[in-house]
Amino acid sequence: MLVSALLTSVGINSGLCVLFFILYSILRKQPSNYEVYIPRLLAEGNSKRRTGFNLERLIPSPGWVKRAWKLSEDDLLSTSGLDAVVFMRVITFSLRVFLFAGVIGIFVLLPVNCTGDQLNDIDFADLSNNSLDLFTISNLESGSKRLWAHFSAVYLVTAFVCYLLYYEYKYITAKRIAYFHSTKPQPHQFTILVRSIPVSAGSSVSESVERFFLEYHPFTYLSHMVVHRTSKLQSLIKDAKKLYKRLTHLQSDPNQQKYRHIGLFGRKFDLVDHYGKKLEDIEENLRLERSEVSLAAEEVGAAFVSFKTRYGAAVAFHMQQSTNPTQWVTEQAPEPHDVYWPFFSSSFMKRWLSKIVVIVACIFLTILFLIPVLVVQGLTNLNQLEIWFPFLKSILTITFISQVITGYLPSLILLLFLKIVPPIMEFLSSIQGYICHSDIEKSACNKVLWFTIWNIFFATVFSGSVLYQVSIILEPKNIPARLAVAVPAQASFFIAYVVTSGWTSASSELFRIIPFIWSLIRKPFSCCSDEEIEVPAIPYHRDLPRILFFGLLGITYFFLAPLILPFLLVYLCLAYVIYRNQFINVYAPKYETAGKFWPIVHNSMIFSLVLMQAIAVGIFTLKKLSLASTLVFPLPVLTLLFNEYCRKRFLPNFIAYPAEVLIKRDREDRNDPTMEEFYDNLVTAYQDPALLPIQFSPNADSLNSPLISAAEVRH
Amino acid sequence: MLVSALLTSVGINSGLCVLFFILYSILRKQPSNYEVYIPRLLAEGNSKRRTGFNLERLIPSPGWVKRAWKLSEDDLLSTSGLDAVVFMRVITFSLRVFLFAGVIGIFVLLPVNCTGDQLNDIDFADLSNNSLDLFTISNLESGSKRLWAHFSAVYLVTAFVCYLLYYEYKYITAKRIAYFHSTKPQPHQFTILVRSIPVSAGSSVSESVERFFLEYHPFTYLSHMVVHRTSKLQSLIKDAKKLYKRLTHLQSDPNQQKYRHIGLFGRKFDLVDHYGKKLEDIEENLRLERSEVSLAAEEVGAAFVSFKTRYGAAVAFHMQQSTNPTQWVTEQAPEPHDVYWPFFSSSFMKRWLSKIVVIVACIFLTILFLIPVLVVQGLTNLNQLEIWFPFLKSILTITFISQVITGYLPSLILLLFLKIVPPIMEFLSSIQGYICHSDIEKSACNKVLWFTIWNIFFATVFSGSVLYQVSIILEPKNIPARLAVAVPAQASFFIAYVVTSGWTSASSELFRIIPFIWSLIRKPFSCCSDEEIEVPAIPYHRDLPRILFFGLLGITYFFLAPLILPFLLVYLCLAYVIYRNQFINVYAPKYETAGKFWPIVHNSMIFSLVLMQAIAVGIFTLKKLSLASTLVFPLPVLTLLFNEYCRKRFLPNFIAYPAEVLIKRDREDRNDPTMEEFYDNLVTAYQDPALLPIQFSPNADSLNSPLISAAEVRH
Repeated sequence: MLVSALLTSVGINSGLCVLFFILYSILRKQPSNYEVYIPRLLAEGNSKRRTGFNLERLIPSPGWVKRAWKLSEDDLLSTSGLDAVVFMRVITFSLRVFLFAGVIGIFVLLPVNCTGDQLNDIDFADLSNNSLDLFTISNLESGSKRLWAHFSAVYLVTAFVCYLLYYEYKYITAKRIAYFHSTKPQPHQFTILVRSIPVSAGSSVSESVERFFLEYHPFTYLSHMVVHRTSKLQSLIKDAKKLYKRLTHLQSDPNQQKYRHIGLFGRKFDLVDHYGKKLEDIEENLRLERSEVSLAAEEVGAAFVSFKTRYGAAVAFHMQQSTNPTQWVTEQAPEPHDVYWPFFSSSFMKRWLSKIVVIVACIFLTILFLIPVLVVQGLTNLNQLEIWFPFLKSILTITFISQVITGYLPSLILLLFLKIVPPIMEFLSSIQGYICHSDIEKSACNKVLWFTIWNIFFATVFSGSVLYQVSIILEPKNIPARLAVAVPAQASFFIAYVVTSGWTSASSELFRIIPFIWSLIRKPFSCCSDEEIEVPAIPYHRDLPRILFFGLLGITYFFLAPLILPFLLVYLCLAYVIYRNQFINVYAPKYETAGKFWPIVHNSMIFSLVLMQAIAVGIFTLKKLSLASTLVFPLPVLTLLFNEYCRKRFLPNFIAYPAEVLIKRDREDRNDPTMEEFYDNLVTAYQDPALLPIQFSPNADSLNSPLISAAEVRH
Repeated sequence: MLVSALLTSVGINSGLCVLFFILYSILRKQPSNYEVYIPRLLAEGNSKRRTGFNLERLIPSPGWVKRAWKLSEDDLLSTSGLDAVVFMRVITFSLRVFLFAGVIGIFVLLPVNCTGDQLNDIDFADLSNNSLDLFTISNLESGSKRLWAHFSAVYLVTAFVCYLLYYEYKYITAKRIAYFHSTKPQPHQFTILVRSIPVSAGSSVSESVERFFLEYHPFTYLSHMVVHRTSKLQSLIKDAKKLYKRLTHLQSDPNQQKYRHIGLFGRKFDLVDHYGKKLEDIEENLRLERSEVSLAAEEVGAAFVSFKTRYGAAVAFHMQQSTNPTQWVTEQAPEPHDVYWPFFSSSFMKRWLSKIVVIVACIFLTILFLIPVLVVQGLTNLNQLEIWFPFLKSILTITFISQVITGYLPSLILLLFLKIVPPIMEFLSSIQGYICHSDIEKSACNKVLWFTIWNIFFATVFSGSVLYQVSIILEPKNIPARLAVAVPAQASFFIAYVVTSGWTSASSELFRIIPFIWSLIRKPFSCCSDEEIEVPAIPYHRDLPRILFFGLLGITYFFLAPLILPFLLVYLCLAYVIYRNQFINVYAPKYETAGKFWPIVHNSMIFSLVLMQAIAVGIFTLKKLSLASTLVFPLPVLTLLFNEYCRKRFLPNFIAYPAEVLIKRDREDRNDPTMEEFYDNLVTAYQDPALLPIQFSPNADSLNSPLISAAEVRH
C-alpha cells in the first residue's frame, strides 16, 4: 500500500468523524432524538423535553466534550458502577502504553527504519508515493546494528507494560474491595445458587433443600427459593403484556375506540371486545399454568439459598457440600435482576455437555467466518481481483477507486461482518449454562476477543486458509519464523484497519447509527410519546474486545511499523471522550460485576506481549541478528512468570471476596437496624418474575395471590 | 532380536527369580536376618528370635506365599492403611486389564500377526531362530483387512480400561470416605498450616496469629503453634544422640570400659570421660540454642493452627483469608509425625521460586540422563558397537555373549541407572517447599513416573537424541506418524525389558538385596543386638512409577506386540504375592494419605491410553488403512472427556473431605468423653521435635523444661 492510499483512507475517515461529531452535536439537542442520545438522563428525570424551538438547537456545540472530559472517576463510579470505571481504565491504560511506545516508536524506531535501504530509498520529494513498507522494520538490511534499537524497545515496552499491568491490577483490586465495603447489603451477597439437587423419592426439591441446609448449616441458613420451569409461563405473560398494551392503547385513543374492524369475510366486530376477550383467555391460561408450575413436579433441581451472613454464604459456596461433587453444586448467586431465567438447565451432565457443544460451535463459526476474510484478502491484492474478474480492469485503473478499494473497502467489509459476531457469541454463551447476564457477557467477551484475534489477526496474517493456519499451530517450532515473515507484510493493512475500523467504530458509537435509524423508522408508528424509555446497557462483549484487539495490534506492531501508533492514539483519545459521554448520557449499568472484566484485559495484554516477543524472535532471526534473537528468549519466560505471579496475587480476589472482608462487613451490619427489613426482602428476592403477581383485567384478582409456597417463607 | 535371545533372557531371569525365592525362603528363617526380612513383625513383637538350631531352618518352605495370598483387603487396611490397599489395587487393576488384553492379544492378535508375510514367513521348524518382529503388527502387509482385528482390540481395551478406571475411582473414593469415618479423631483433621504470616512491627508471629484467628474464627479457633528455625538445633541434637549412644555403649561394655585410647601424640586419656565431657558441652550448646530459638526473632512466618472442629479447620482451609492472597496462605496440616521440618521456607515468593528452580533441575536431570540411555542404545545395535570398538568383534561373534549383550545387558544398565533416580527426585521434591513426607513422596512419585516415561519410553523409541525428541514434541502433527514407525521397532527391547527389569526388580524386592548386604557389612561392627529395629516404609515413589510404567508398556504394546503380555502377567503375579508379603513382614506405614496416590495412577493410565491411541492412528495410516485411522480419532477425544468427567466427579474428594462428611464426624465426637483429653494433646501435637525435652546426662535437668510459650497454650 502506498502512503497516498493510506492518506485517502485517513481523509475519508477524518471526514466521517467530523461529520458524525457535527451531526451528533446538532441531533442530540432535538427533543425527538432524546431517546437515542440521552435516554439515561431522560429516565432519571434529569432532562426535560424542551418543546420550544430556538436557533441554538441547530448550531453544533462542543459542550458535551468538556463535560465528558471533566467527569471524575469517583463520579463515574457512583453513577455507572465499577465496571464502567474498569472499562474507562482499559482505555487510559492503553493510552499510557501507547504514549510511551509512541515516543520510542516515532522518535527512535521510525527514523531508524527510514535509514535502511533494504527496499529502496525514500522518495522525499513525493512522500505520498512511497510504499508504507519503507517505514517498517522490513526496510532495514539483515545484520544491521541498528536493529538493537528495536531490541531495546521490545525490552523497554515489555517492562513498562508489565509494570502498568501490575499497578492496574492492584488498583482495581483495591477499588473492588473498597466498593464491596461501601455497598449496602445486597441479596446476592447473602445467597448462593445450588444446582444438581438430588431428590429422594416422595419428597420435593424444596423439602430436600430445607432438610440439607438445616442439617449442615443450621446457624447460618435463612431461606431458599426453588427454581421452577417457567418458559411456558414467560411466553404467556409476554403475550398478555402485548395484548394489554394494545388494549389500553385502543381504549385511550378516542378516534379508534369506535373503530370497527372489518374482517376478512366482511364480518364486523368490536376490536376492544375482541382483545378484551382474548386477554381474559390468556389470563385464564396463566392461572392454570401458574398453579401447575407451582407444583413440585415443575421444580427444577436448583435453588437459591440465602444465609444470614455473607460469610455463611461464602463458606457454603467454597466448601464441597456433598460426597458426590456433582451433586449440591454451589455457585455464587447473581444479583436478582441479573438472573437469566430462560435457560436453567439443572443436571450436571447436561450443563457439561452443552459447554462442549458450545465450544465445538465456536470452532465451527470461526472456520465459517474465514470466507469473508478471504474476500477481504482478495481485495487487498488487486492483481488477484483483476485475474478473477477481468471486466473490473478498466475501473481499477482509476487511481482513486483502486485506492478506496485497497485502503478502505476491505476493512469496511470486515467491520460489517464483525458486527454480527458479538450477538452470536452472546447467544452461544447463553446456552452454555450461565445463569446471569453478567456471566454470559463475560464469557461472550472472551469468545469475541479470541474470535477477533484469530479471525482478523491470524487469518489476515496467514492469508486465510484454515488448513494453513492449523498446520502452523501444529508446528509450534516454526511459529516465530512464520510470524516474522507474515506479520510485517500486513503492517499497512492493519494501519488502515485502525483508521477505518477504529475511528469509524468510535464515532458511530457516538452517533449511535443503528438506534438512530431504528428510532426514525419507528417514529411514525409509535403512538404515545410517553412510553417507557428503555435505557440501554453498554455491551461490554462488543466494545471491550475491540479495544483489546487494537491494543494487541499496537503492541505487536509498535516496533515493526511505528507508524501505526499515532493513528491508534487518535482512536484511543476519541474512545476516551466518547465512552465517557455515553456513560453520562446513554448507558445505565444493568448489573455490577465489580471489575470482574479486568482479568480478561490482563490476559489479553499478556498474550499480546508474548506474541510480540515471538515475532521479535522471528524477526531478529530473519534479519540474521542471532544474538538479539537469543537474548529476547528470556522475555516471554519472564512475562509468563509475571503473569503467573499476578494470577496468584490478584486473581483470587476477582473470584470471591476473602474471609477478612466478608466478616468485617457482617460485623458492621450487626448494629444496622434496617437489617430486619432486608432479611424480609431477601426471602423473596429471587422469586422468578414470571411467578410474581401481575394484574391486567379488573376481574382477575385471583392472579394476585402470591405464589410462594410455605416452605419458601423465611425460616 | 531373535526369539532365542529373548529365551536366553527369560532363562537367566527365571533362574534368578527361582534362586531369589529359594534364598529368601531359607534366609528369612535365620534369626540373624530377622531385621532384614521381618522387621515389622519383630518391632511389633509378633516374632521372637529363635536361638535354637534345627534342620527346618535350612529347607526352603513356601508357607509365606500362602500367607501373602490369603491376606484379605480388610486385614491389609487395618495393618498397613489405605495407601497399601491402593497400592495393591494398582496391581490387581493391572492384572485385570492385562488378563483381558492378554486373552485378546494372544488368542486373536498374535495369530493374526503371524499370518502376515510382510517380513518373511515364520520358520516353524526352528522357532527360536525367528525374529521377534514376526509376531508383531509389522508383519502384516499394508492395507490388510486383518488390521480391523487390531482396530476392534483398541476400542475394546479402551472401553474396558475406562470402565475399570471409573469403577476403581469410585471404589477408592468410597473407601476413603469410609476410612475417614472409621478413624479416631486425629490432630491433622483439626489443624491447618498457615504460611506467609504478615507481622506488624513490634509484635511476634505468635501474637499476630492469635489476633487474626481470634478475630475471624472466634468460635472455632483452639490454639496455634508457631514454627521456629531449628535446623541448627536439629544438628546439635543429632550429634548429642550419636555421642550418647557411643557413650552408653562404652559404659555397658565391660571389655572396653577400661580401654584407654592412645592419641596421635601418645597421650592417653579416658575415652568415657572424654565423650562425657563432649556430651556436656553439646548439651550446654543445646540449652543456649534452645533459649535462642524460642525467642520471637527465630520464629518463621508459619504456624499450625488448630480448631475445635474438623469443619472449622476445613472452612479456614478453603476460604481465602486475607485480602492479599499471598498472605495467610492456608493448607491442610499433615499428620504430626509426617511433618518434614528441615525445609520450612516461609515466604510465598521463595517457595514459588524454589518450585521453578526444581522444575528446571528436573529438566536438566532428564537431559543428563540421556547419556546412559545412549549407551544402552549402542548395546542393542551390536553392529554399531563393533564399529566403535573393533577389538570386541571376536567376542561378539560368540552367540551366547552377543545374546546376553543384546537381550540382557541393556536393560540391566538402565535398571542400575534408574535406581538412583527416585532418591534424587525425592530430594528435589523436598526442597520444593512441601512440608510433609507424604507430599514429598507424592510429588517425587509423579516426577519419577514422567522421568521414566520420557527417559525410558520416548528416549528408547526415538533413539535418544534430545534435540530429535524436542523437535518431535514441537511438531505435534507428526507425532502419531513417528510413533507408528518407531514404537513397533522397539517391541523386542521392551519385551526384554519387562523380563529383566520387571522380574528382577520384583524378586530383588523380595530378597531385599541392598538391606541384606548392608546388614552383612554392618553385622561385625554392630555390638548390641537389641538395638532399636528400624521398620522401613515402602518407598511409593520408587515402586509405584515402576508398576505404572509397566502398565504403560502393556497398554501401548498390547496390539503391536501381544507377546509382551504373558511376561507382563508373570511380573504382575510376582508383584502381587511379593508386595503382599512385604506389607505383612517388612513395611510399616509411615503416614496415611488415605489413597491420595490414586489420582496419579488414574492420570498415568489415561496418558497410556491416549498414547496407545495416537500410535494406533499412526499405525493405521502407515498401513494404509485410512478408514480405521479416521475412526480411531474419536477415541482419544472420548478418553479425555472421560478423564475430565472423572476429575469433576472424583478428584475433589481426594483433595479435601466434603462438608457433609466433616460435619457428621464432628457431631459424633460431641458425645465422646475422650475429646477433652484429645484437645489437650492437640495443643502440643505440632511441637517441633527439636524443641521437645530430651535428657542425656543426669545433670542436665534444665533441658526438660518445656519450651511452649504462653501464647501457644490452648486458648
